[in-house]
Amino acid sequence: MAIEAARLSPSLAAAAFLGRRALPATHFTRRLPLLLLSRASASSSGGDGRAVALPSSELRKRRSSASATGEDSKLGAIRRLFVRPDIAIDAYIVPSQDAHQSEFIAECFMRRTYLTGFTGSAGTAVVTKNNAAFWTDGRYFLQAEKELSHEWTLMRSGNHGVPTTIEWLNDVLPSGCRIGIDPFLFSFDAAEELKDAIANKNHELIMISDFNLVDEIWGESRPEPPKEPVRVHDIKYAGIDVPSKLSYVRSELAENGCESVVISMLDEIAWLLNMRGSDVPHSPVFYSYLIVEMSTATLFVDRNKVSEDVLEHLEKAGVTLKPYNAILSSVERLAEKGAKLWLDSSSVNAAIASVFRSSCDRYRKKTGKTGRQIGKDTSSDELTSKSHVQNGALNGLYKVSPVTLAKSIKNNAEIRGMKNSHLRDAAALAEFWCWLEEEVRKTVALTEVQVAEKLLEFRQKQDGFIETSFDTISGYGANGAIIHYRPTPDSCSSVGSDNLFLLDSGAQYIDGTTDITRTVHFGEPSQRQKECFTRVLQGHIALDQAVFPERTPGFVLDVLARSSLWKIGLDYRHGTGHGVGAALNVHEGPQSISYRYGNLTALQKGMIVSNEPGYYEDNSFGIRIENLVLVKEVNLANSFGGISYLGFEKLTFVPIQSNLIDLSLLSPSEINWVNEYHEQVWEKVSPMLSGDPRDWLWKNTRPL
Amino acid sequence: MAIEAARLSPSLAAAAFLGRRALPATHFTRRLPLLLLSRASASSSGGDGRAVALPSSELRKRRSSASATGEDSKLGAIRRLFVRPDIAIDAYIVPSQDAHQSEFIAECFMRRTYLTGFTGSAGTAVVTKNNAAFWTDGRYFLQAEKELSHEWTLMRSGNHGVPTTIEWLNDVLPSGCRIGIDPFLFSFDAAEELKDAIANKNHELIMISDFNLVDEIWGESRPEPPKEPVRVHDIKYAGIDVPSKLSYVRSELAENGCESVVISMLDEIAWLLNMRGSDVPHSPVFYSYLIVEMSTATLFVDRNKVSEDVLEHLEKAGVTLKPYNAILSSVERLAEKGAKLWLDSSSVNAAIASVFRSSCDRYRKKTGKTGRQIGKDTSSDELTSKSHVQNGALNGLYKVSPVTLAKSIKNNAEIRGMKNSHLRDAAALAEFWCWLEEEVRKTVALTEVQVAEKLLEFRQKQDGFIETSFDTISGYGANGAIIHYRPTPDSCSSVGSDNLFLLDSGAQYIDGTTDITRTVHFGEPSQRQKECFTRVLQGHIALDQAVFPERTPGFVLDVLARSSLWKIGLDYRHGTGHGVGAALNVHEGPQSISYRYGNLTALQKGMIVSNEPGYYEDNSFGIRIENLVLVKEVNLANSFGGISYLGFEKLTFVPIQSNLIDLSLLSPSEINWVNEYHEQVWEKVSPMLSGDPRDWLWKNTRPL
Repeated sequence: MAIEAARLSPSLAAAAFLGRRALPATHFTRRLPLLLLSRASASSSGGDGRAVALPSSELRKRRSSASATGEDSKLGAIRRLFVRPDIAIDAYIVPSQDAHQSEFIAECFMRRTYLTGFTGSAGTAVVTKNNAAFWTDGRYFLQAEKELSHEWTLMRSGNHGVPTTIEWLNDVLPSGCRIGIDPFLFSFDAAEELKDAIANKNHELIMISDFNLVDEIWGESRPEPPKEPVRVHDIKYAGIDVPSKLSYVRSELAENGCESVVISMLDEIAWLLNMRGSDVPHSPVFYSYLIVEMSTATLFVDRNKVSEDVLEHLEKAGVTLKPYNAILSSVERLAEKGAKLWLDSSSVNAAIASVFRSSCDRYRKKTGKTGRQIGKDTSSDELTSKSHVQNGALNGLYKVSPVTLAKSIKNNAEIRGMKNSHLRDAAALAEFWCWLEEEVRKTVALTEVQVAEKLLEFRQKQDGFIETSFDTISGYGANGAIIHYRPTPDSCSSVGSDNLFLLDSGAQYIDGTTDITRTVHFGEPSQRQKECFTRVLQGHIALDQAVFPERTPGFVLDVLARSSLWKIGLDYRHGTGHGVGAALNVHEGPQSISYRYGNLTALQKGMIVSNEPGYYEDNSFGIRIENLVLVKEVNLANSFGGISYLGFEKLTFVPIQSNLIDLSLLSPSEINWVNEYHEQVWEKVSPMLSGDPRDWLWKNTRPL
Repeated sequence: MAIEAARLSPSLAAAAFLGRRALPATHFTRRLPLLLLSRASASSSGGDGRAVALPSSELRKRRSSASATGEDSKLGAIRRLFVRPDIAIDAYIVPSQDAHQSEFIAECFMRRTYLTGFTGSAGTAVVTKNNAAFWTDGRYFLQAEKELSHEWTLMRSGNHGVPTTIEWLNDVLPSGCRIGIDPFLFSFDAAEELKDAIANKNHELIMISDFNLVDEIWGESRPEPPKEPVRVHDIKYAGIDVPSKLSYVRSELAENGCESVVISMLDEIAWLLNMRGSDVPHSPVFYSYLIVEMSTATLFVDRNKVSEDVLEHLEKAGVTLKPYNAILSSVERLAEKGAKLWLDSSSVNAAIASVFRSSCDRYRKKTGKTGRQIGKDTSSDELTSKSHVQNGALNGLYKVSPVTLAKSIKNNAEIRGMKNSHLRDAAALAEFWCWLEEEVRKTVALTEVQVAEKLLEFRQKQDGFIETSFDTISGYGANGAIIHYRPTPDSCSSVGSDNLFLLDSGAQYIDGTTDITRTVHFGEPSQRQKECFTRVLQGHIALDQAVFPERTPGFVLDVLARSSLWKIGLDYRHGTGHGVGAALNVHEGPQSISYRYGNLTALQKGMIVSNEPGYYEDNSFGIRIENLVLVKEVNLANSFGGISYLGFEKLTFVPIQSNLIDLSLLSPSEINWVNEYHEQVWEKVSPMLSGDPRDWLWKNTRPL
């Protein structure tokens, strides 16, 4: 699944929110060394597929209930709260995210959707006493026009002359106003940036953490927080037990002069505790916080979700439970006992960080002790603390979570699970493509949505299937040119044989996570389509075959995937690769392969990334070829500099349609790559197939 | 001519000096967005070929005079100055540079060489009351051991456990000492960094600008500053007249809210005033400063160098003269009249910047006016001001000189001159290679130095030849593996037919500057050598053929030149491309193509860069293939994003030896590249040749 620029990181998202036109890569890097794809949606303009994670029937239900309440009454109700003495604000900002910077969020946290009626994934609402404005990006202008009531001003982000949120606030508000936010919904970094930006017009940032204003008006109709049970992620898939992982975190704490750390990213908690959940669509995570101290660990989670089995699993690892909502009071107590706390300020929300700071201050005043800021990390590690946290808690270390990098480097069991699940996924896809080809040949009218649903059926038959890993992007013809296209049952196209069909999909299995894109043509592709497809394929091959010295950041390789397109003046507006979790989030950091040069994280042995160059011709067609690959050490005749050289091993084994390849453009070694790949596909996947799908696989893996 | 990491920029150099182990790219970028190659030698570890710019006879003379004076007496003499009441310092740092961050400097400014006796290009001397230490890098350990007296401690920079200058000073000096420097010899940035670093041990940085302590003891034997006449660079080569260039600078001043700018880089002054000089070897520049104000411009230069013709040229452009040494008093007057001054703090020395600051302070106190810091540049321009100048003069704008980028983008006349001079240079090289091949065939024993001298003879016969553009790197066999090898008459090898011969050379012509490397084998290359050569060639071809969107920084393309080597575990430890001046410095910024990712300057139409991948096998052989190329717009069938796509046009036309190519490794398109290049070489250069050289060219441009 391709990542658009806007999805890249909370920092970028914050920048969009704050109205910076474009962050220079360096700035970007300095502030947030990670392009944490999985945090992408913690933003006004980032994220995707979140609000749309619900079945459309439920969406319609919610929408109609919204219009029953009436847009007016919601805005009126929230404005009435503004004047309450315990609130007393002049404006309130309602972003899209949950408290954990999750890409996919639970319905009860879709406050922005509830307030505005806009069901797209990206957008920020701002309500003042007299105005209501909503910012979204180009993907959603039409949808927003349809869904927003007349009381909302649609701000088309990125369009010429459209003010940013801050510019607009500074324009409509007199100097010295109080601008409210729910600090749970902003990372500490984002809140600090916001505070600085509005201070220019003497506005004050009011963090209202006791309640969310939208929840107040949502009232009883607000869905319950998810109560899905959590489960243990079997050690045969996890590979490393929880005590060992906790030991690692504690050694990191010790090395950094800290005594505790708050982990708030849901996938980090799931990984660290070898647990999985199903609180949100697509990602097997559960709402929780985790505090790891030198001798204890506390999981903040709804007790009802935890069965006896899971409890035993946690107890064995010395992890105790507290209610989800006890996080702030526990952080307060950490501050009171003078603990040196590690906070990842790019992911930990402002509510937690603020409570820690204010508690530290109180503690110091009471005891007369002088707090100290733990020295900035001086190692040359790319995942270094951010220097812009100027008012950091004196006992706080602001640095990327110790789990981030560890999670990204897969162990042998995780690699095995990824490989196995990819083969089962490949079998499902072979069956699917065989079926679809035949249906189209028979000119059965199938919509993009029906095709996606059928794909789901094939996957569901595979062992260990859990759910899709993101909303399937099923785009025929011009729809394929919309990078984050999501077909809707009432408006989508039928898949035919006159144009290209782009299908980007993935699944969560018990042992792994998949993400694959193939582009096919069931009729006669034009020469133009073949040329573009072949150039994309050449980019895919060049990246797949890359060998590079250890310590090479992913962005260095990005050009390999583009240069064949550049040679004819083409390009694509998304990154080339994102990290993928092992039976976890389909987007994870810290690594990436992108034309943005800010992410200095080196690609390391054991990391998994997507390889997905594309080309999109507006109103015409879209092409993307995506495999997941594992970073591995390669054995070469030389090792200049006495270092390791790395390369990629393919995890995805599904044929690439050869009738789209213009053979005259390929070099002998590129032809060889295709043939070898297809030979591997046949060898690995054919044993899992029989009948027509097996025949289809045979036909589609013949040498060029 | 390849650029080693250490030569990349004054910032990096300053970092080496200050003992940082490695600057993360972002830091590097933020602080100094330019990798100004031409400033490389303004450093302890950077630079090359400066002290060695003198003929060896003169070097010997100077060295013997040094030993006549005796090392003791020099150190004793300088220490006696420490206690003078007007000096009163505990240590004195003697770097290698002149006051203009020049790559090649005049003999009278070779103070570090005079003081230490060390004649290599890179090194920093530090003298305390009881100690004397000298830092140099791995290239010079042996030479330093030979040349330094026993009173000096040799600090082998980069070796394990060797302290940095600062660490050492903090170790040998008690807290609170006064550490002296000549502020003319440090850029403002470098001096600020130094001041901050030594403040950690309460040392104070004492800027002694009235005189240089080494000059004091050098006394009458110190060479006179160069008095070479300056000349007008003909408009037919310069392309744009001086009034137009000054207008441009003034429009930049206005746009940045400034009223004046100090230009101190010698090549920038030469370019801006369409003048050339010969004060230093290899670069056609002259010692001077330039202040451009909105209606006036003042050149600070020794009046004796300026003929009536030149005077008239300057007068026409409204440029008046002042003595070179009047720069500080003029800057003082600028401050007094409250002028808003633009200073490039990476190139302007600390003497100038400090005088401006202190004068501003005095002015403010006298008048009670409040100065103001001109707002940091907020454009997204890569050449943006550095944020680390914390104590900037309140009336100062610290930003890369307005001339830097303008100079790097060649106009049509400059491009024409570069093309013409490259063809004449190619003719000289064809004659040379024809001659050398024959001599080696006849087994005439020729040393690397003799070969370089003969090459000079061939070049001297060409129209418009002025001098070499750097010291010729003439390395046979194992010597070729030393990236900055410089043969000396008494110790160099003979060129034979048993190994590779690497020749990196260039020339200054009246109309252009050349820089070319070829590697040849006059006998039977080994399979290993052919494989390595072919991989280097593949990298060269890949970069040469690159097409890329406008706004692409050079570092993005670097991987193209390396990936063929990486595939077999090989690499090279220098950048792939540097900017080249038009009849100016052979190394210039702001662009570069490097594996360091700090330089965000986009490659732009009209820029000239080298394309010089290599491979070096220690104690065995060295390979480098270098052409200069011009960045040009390419016309393609598409232009995705509505932007320009750029590519390279070759300027260098000298055959690449085909007996070193392993044809089995090349793709058809790579073979095609070689054949087309050789066809062009024949077409362009053969008309300038006759007899044997013409035959040689014919033979060496036949299709593979």
